[in-house]
Amino acid sequence: MSEDIELKPMSARYNFLAEPFHCDFNNHLFLGHLGNHMLNAADYHSSERGCGMAWLNQHHLTWVLSRLAIEMQEMPVSYGQFAVETWVESVMRFFTSRNYAVTSSEGKVLGYGRSIWAMIDTRTRQPVDILSVRDGLVARYVDRDLPCPIAPASRVRMGEGALCSSARMGYTDIDLNGHVNSVKYIDHVLDLWPLSWHKAHGVKRLDVAYVAEAHSGDTLDFYMEEEQELTFCVSVRRHVEEGTAVEVCRCRVEFKP
Amino acid sequence: MSEDIELKPMSARYNFLAEPFHCDFNNHLFLGHLGNHMLNAADYHSSERGCGMAWLNQHHLTWVLSRLAIEMQEMPVSYGQFAVETWVESVMRFFTSRNYAVTSSEGKVLGYGRSIWAMIDTRTRQPVDILSVRDGLVARYVDRDLPCPIAPASRVRMGEGALCSSARMGYTDIDLNGHVNSVKYIDHVLDLWPLSWHKAHGVKRLDVAYVAEAHSGDTLDFYMEEEQELTFCVSVRRHVEEGTAVEVCRCRVEFKP
Repeated sequence: MSEDIELKPMSARYNFLAEPFHCDFNNHLFLGHLGNHMLNAADYHSSERGCGMAWLNQHHLTWVLSRLAIEMQEMPVSYGQFAVETWVESVMRFFTSRNYAVTSSEGKVLGYGRSIWAMIDTRTRQPVDILSVRDGLVARYVDRDLPCPIAPASRVRMGEGALCSSARMGYTDIDLNGHVNSVKYIDHVLDLWPLSWHKAHGVKRLDVAYVAEAHSGDTLDFYMEEEQELTFCVSVRRHVEEGTAVEVCRCRVEFKP
Repeated sequence: MSEDIELKPMSARYNFLAEPFHCDFNNHLFLGHLGNHMLNAADYHSSERGCGMAWLNQHHLTWVLSRLAIEMQEMPVSYGQFAVETWVESVMRFFTSRNYAVTSSEGKVLGYGRSIWAMIDTRTRQPVDILSVRDGLVARYVDRDLPCPIAPASRVRMGEGALCSSARMGYTDIDLNGHVNSVKYIDHVLDLWPLSWHKAHGVKRLDVAYVAEAHSGDTLDFYMEEEQELTFCVSVRRHVEEGTAVEVCRCRVEFKP
């Protein structure tokens, strides 16, 4: 018997401002901040529909981001108003896919995002059947018709790559879930290229596949491989003990010519 | 002859939300994000009064943050609404002081901030007489009566300190001014203490004195000295060449017992 909940509209749109100090040297919103706004929009949307983090956390559950893809034709510029519309595209037992459309205040499409989420039990860290939560409430909000004309979030295939940087995760990398914040990986990965590269090339598309969690004090190694001209794959690995490492996430970054 | 501008109220209040992914493991807004909201409030307030960054930049001028002090009794918690009220306390030829009061949505005072700003010519990087800009418009917005019951932003006196960390400034450290963002220093400094320390001690007060600019590719060294129990001074120095360094900023962090 399903709960007697009045359904809200399938998608919702949230307005954001590209704050000046969230913009890069070129006046464009940092991709990490855009990713953060997408995660916020996801949380607001699911909260308003009975399955947000605050509700889940009270029931020893949480959403875990598994994959994120962002493909932008244009980035919001400083002081610019923009909107992130988000909706659920599909729900399966252990994964749900959620899409995003980013538009300017004039309604112009700036780009799109795709994400895949799992749900876990915060006590056991084991996956939870999403369709079992609140009688499958999430599945009542699936909208298959809204367009998201970008490729699915990729697994990111790559070889070993070459070690190009290391970073120790500190207090400000860790969010309220107790592990390294999803968008902090994006920041660390984009820092692998010098400012001169970013001056010449904006990011066209970013794919991130989150594999394992990293924590405060972990040293992360960044291994890079050039897939083709202007497209790079990065494997982020956490030291476990001398000589062994565990992959925590994998990214592909495609730059504009 | 002064410009015929209708004066706005002396102070203004801006509402913010403590976004979940801007909060630390303990559900408290990161101090750097609070600092960012203060800088945003300063920019909104001065923009609405004819002397914001957008106007100044068009006239080859910009505000440069010289000192910042934040003293909090309580930090906003995730999803919490809070307000930053800001006003100009005094204006001299080369410096102006601006204060901040942070209140919860119920009107409870959470803490205060103080800042000192200079104005520079963006072509020469030389200080500009603030009283000469727009016929001293900034000075028409001085409010000496609003209370800001915390000590002035300190110079931070310290000895040599001991080298405790180094960090290379990357793309995401650089803001639209082209140099390391003011609040990024706060993040890097707070990362000097392990998560276990932050679990035991919240920040009571932070003072930052900005001395010089740092740029992408610069390696910053962090030298620390314990001033007294729970109070630490940090000098941030930029490598110039082998064996020489220039101080870019200096902080004092006072933790709660």
